[in-house]
Amino acid sequence: MPAKEIETLIGLFARLPTLGPRSARRAVLSLLDNPKSQMGPMIQAMQDVVENIQTCPICGNFDTQSPCNICSNPKKDKKQVCVVRDIADLWALDRANIFHGVYHVLGGVLSALDGVGPDDLNIDKLIGRIQTGEIEEVILALPATVDGQTTAHYIADRLSKYPVQLTTLARGVPVGGELDYLDDGTLQMALKSRRSL
Amino acid sequence: MPAKEIETLIGLFARLPTLGPRSARRAVLSLLDNPKSQMGPMIQAMQDVVENIQTCPICGNFDTQSPCNICSNPKKDKKQVCVVRDIADLWALDRANIFHGVYHVLGGVLSALDGVGPDDLNIDKLIGRIQTGEIEEVILALPATVDGQTTAHYIADRLSKYPVQLTTLARGVPVGGELDYLDDGTLQMALKSRRSL
Repeated sequence: MPAKEIETLIGLFARLPTLGPRSARRAVLSLLDNPKSQMGPMIQAMQDVVENIQTCPICGNFDTQSPCNICSNPKKDKKQVCVVRDIADLWALDRANIFHGVYHVLGGVLSALDGVGPDDLNIDKLIGRIQTGEIEEVILALPATVDGQTTAHYIADRLSKYPVQLTTLARGVPVGGELDYLDDGTLQMALKSRRSL
Repeated sequence: MPAKEIETLIGLFARLPTLGPRSARRAVLSLLDNPKSQMGPMIQAMQDVVENIQTCPICGNFDTQSPCNICSNPKKDKKQVCVVRDIADLWALDRANIFHGVYHVLGGVLSALDGVGPDDLNIDKLIGRIQTGEIEEVILALPATVDGQTTAHYIADRLSKYPVQLTTLARGVPVGGELDYLDDGTLQMALKSRRSL
């Protein structure tokens, strides 16, 4: 059996998403093999993150500054708010560099199965942002899953009394997608939302 | 873009085996979401490991004590030494709890492609252990790959002048294995090493 200290570290790694017991063991062994070049810098990087990172009080993003670099960037269009499930999705849109407005992180989607209700999500904060009157368009960039769409409908319902334009991401054939491999639902949406060339 | 501190941590995670950029991002986000229950304990666990873990001077295992708990265990049969590629393989055999001798970690296998020569492996240390005259059997538990078998032959050659019994793991059909899914090499070895019922 590995030493208790090593077992503890493996157990912590195994709890991370996408890792299991085997990959956790391999990750920890790699750290043990390279204490100077991997383990040391990782301890330092985690301490830096713990000491410096905070949640943006406006959008819910993680950053060293508060408000975050997106919310405090004067070049961003504060009239457009893109609602995302989590920070991973925010980063994905930000990496693509295609959206020039600001974000709002819900912190999850409604899920009866996982016991996530409206009070568990940052919906009241979103309404607070809309009530300032500065926002013209709310773009719902939620997952195209049942839970994601339930959440989108719930938010649309809550926002219906405010004078904001509400939009959602287009459904259709993904770039590079082969029709033969797509599910019927996607094909149906793509056909229904067909556009003239 | 995530803050510089977060990018650094993601980069360090992405260098670990079995993780890529996407799973590194997900792992780091999970740590950021749970600073108290995940990030804090992980920093602590890594520091404990860095401060307490050392390499066993006899077999090359990692442990808090030196020699390691296996080498210093009086119940282990010091006459049998099982030679393994790395500590992950040592732990795999140790977890199975089927071998009651001691181990020797080579630290890799010979590989022309990766530039690993005999001097990069703990072979001299193995010979030193044999020269004490206490060892009766050396079991080569190396991977059944070309590099693993090259290494096994090289070690067999180096040990030929010492009065130790040299054995290797059996080849054959793995438990639960369907013949239809096995490669020809395994089938051939299984047939060649067939035994009477």
